[in-house]
Amino acid sequence: MDSDVFEDSEFERRTERAQRLMREHRLDALLLTSQPNFRYFSGFDSQFWESPTRPWFLIVPAEGRCIAVVPELGAPLFEKKWIQDVRCWPSPRPSDEGVSLLTDALQSLPHPFSRIGLEMGRESTIRMPLNDLLELRNRLRGIELVDGSPCIWKVRAIKSPAEIRCIRQICQIASAAFENLPQRLAIGRSEIEVCKDLTIDLLKRGADTVPFMAAASGPGGYAQIISRPGVRRLQDGDVLIIDVGATLNGYFCDFDRNYGFGKLSRGALSAQQAVWEATEAGIAAAVPGSRTSDLWAAMMKVLERAGMPGNNAGRMGHGLGLQFTEPPSNMSDDHTVLEEGMVITIEPGVEYEKGKMIVHEENVVVTSNGAELLTRRAPCVMPIV
Amino acid sequence: MDSDVFEDSEFERRTERAQRLMREHRLDALLLTSQPNFRYFSGFDSQFWESPTRPWFLIVPAEGRCIAVVPELGAPLFEKKWIQDVRCWPSPRPSDEGVSLLTDALQSLPHPFSRIGLEMGRESTIRMPLNDLLELRNRLRGIELVDGSPCIWKVRAIKSPAEIRCIRQICQIASAAFENLPQRLAIGRSEIEVCKDLTIDLLKRGADTVPFMAAASGPGGYAQIISRPGVRRLQDGDVLIIDVGATLNGYFCDFDRNYGFGKLSRGALSAQQAVWEATEAGIAAAVPGSRTSDLWAAMMKVLERAGMPGNNAGRMGHGLGLQFTEPPSNMSDDHTVLEEGMVITIEPGVEYEKGKMIVHEENVVVTSNGAELLTRRAPCVMPIV
Repeated sequence: MDSDVFEDSEFERRTERAQRLMREHRLDALLLTSQPNFRYFSGFDSQFWESPTRPWFLIVPAEGRCIAVVPELGAPLFEKKWIQDVRCWPSPRPSDEGVSLLTDALQSLPHPFSRIGLEMGRESTIRMPLNDLLELRNRLRGIELVDGSPCIWKVRAIKSPAEIRCIRQICQIASAAFENLPQRLAIGRSEIEVCKDLTIDLLKRGADTVPFMAAASGPGGYAQIISRPGVRRLQDGDVLIIDVGATLNGYFCDFDRNYGFGKLSRGALSAQQAVWEATEAGIAAAVPGSRTSDLWAAMMKVLERAGMPGNNAGRMGHGLGLQFTEPPSNMSDDHTVLEEGMVITIEPGVEYEKGKMIVHEENVVVTSNGAELLTRRAPCVMPIV
Repeated sequence: MDSDVFEDSEFERRTERAQRLMREHRLDALLLTSQPNFRYFSGFDSQFWESPTRPWFLIVPAEGRCIAVVPELGAPLFEKKWIQDVRCWPSPRPSDEGVSLLTDALQSLPHPFSRIGLEMGRESTIRMPLNDLLELRNRLRGIELVDGSPCIWKVRAIKSPAEIRCIRQICQIASAAFENLPQRLAIGRSEIEVCKDLTIDLLKRGADTVPFMAAASGPGGYAQIISRPGVRRLQDGDVLIIDVGATLNGYFCDFDRNYGFGKLSRGALSAQQAVWEATEAGIAAAVPGSRTSDLWAAMMKVLERAGMPGNNAGRMGHGLGLQFTEPPSNMSDDHTVLEEGMVITIEPGVEYEKGKMIVHEENVVVTSNGAELLTRRAPCVMPIV
């Protein structure tokens, strides 16, 4: 449980910040069903989210502490924790999987606005059967279920010092593991073998979990950056990218590193140079008051000057925290204003020839003094095996 | 990608089985948004599901192969694979995150029933913003969005020989890792330390991922079975349980093992004996034609004869496959008839004193000859360290 890592005051502050925004958005409560939102406001951590059988509900009321409406088998995890109002039903019970209990809990709150915010919008999903949600809506007569996502994301976007410590620590763990990796790399080894070694090294260095490890390789670059490591064996002239999302206390790092094998083509070396410099420009631009579209422009300017087209990722970085990616996006039509405490990835990429990408990524926190690196900066010249 | 593991014919058979059921349920198509359903029907595997930014849509039409409607950056993963109709939009694009493209794809299908099945029901969630789903519903005038879950779960419940091979293999890997664990156990070590060793051993033995590892320990038993391993150090008289969900090609094992430390209380030993015997009874009862309520009754009979009350899990086992838990549930009011090819967990548990549980679990496949163990049967007497 996160209550072993964070003080109660951490959850109080998160809740109070949400409650201020809820008043602005005219919401009586937030109803949360997804793992990261539940965890953010309660500190509740369980891998039981892997099982789709049981929903877990958290209510952020307009005042006071959160209310948990959860399956009976989870109740012991809330004992002596910050959340004190825990209501349980015997689950599984498909005929009424918590819906009655949840209805009662929501109806008994004061409802000056008659509006409850759900995880309905951008980059959000509701983790309960839609049939049950429709039943809940029918029972909550006179209370409207509306989009609470803008409010939720706004609270989560600004990280507390304790959250930043977690992200910095996992970034440092992954940086060390990446720096240690070349000794495990060799022409003839497969992506899978290399990535398994890296996963084990991350765990040994203190990562709690490694939910994301994408890898791709090819002569002078790679065609995509989202697949799991494959059976392909590394060859002379290859560039290998590994992109890691490891966690500590639920908080992710998300960055990649490139490794060259043998003699790289001139094109690959130029692309590497361009994205390294674009990363520098992105980091320099990440100051309070800048917009995410400014970050995009700063990176694009470097890539264009180098004569490099962008890649197909559609953005060059994003928010980072309890999820591997969070809003906002560094892209031309996202004009989110950066504020102190935001943690973002700086992630320029090029596809300098068809099927040959080079992508870089670093993680930074926005401070009053500009961007502070959470990762250890990748070398300007990629390590060659 | 699973297309490297499974033949195209595997996906053809899955799709044809769904299409037969869709006719019975009067559905023109299934619209799938969640990772396991997308993967089941397409073989598409990516860890990019960790990022909430982009939805991924799969359409199972009434005839022919599936249609993928996916973000552009994922397109390379579909090249030369079973799915040939892949439609892409440049993502992120929050103003239209695939909704127009999806609307067109669904509208262009024949719609004799004017009904499209969604993941709306039991143990299902829809992984797209609800706002976007409401927009889709508005645009699909004359076509009703209905619950497709019964149809989806019915297809997935019967595992193919290739699926069973994957589950058997991961069960064998985890069985070997559990059998090897006692040499890493010692009084004074913490749950976290022991579980990290087990995770690394699982990866070294060939598991792809270890998304679930719950652990709990206490004198003579444990108060719950769903938390992550904690800082608690093992003591004389403790029972430690570790419950593992590791995967191979996406397929889970889900079973636990208990370990005793020093001298166990008489109550703990009796409880261990009772749940071991209840597991035997559950395995013996898992024959085609039995109902899941019969499995429950067979296990309960043994526990009651031993004078043991049940625990708070609410069921004594469940389906298993691409998800860590799947329907059905072994419980008194679930009367699902077992069929050949179903993979289920047999999971009796007792709370013989307040805060002292003992739970056992094995994984079996239902065959014409009865239950076949996929795990290596736990010893009747728990290993004592």
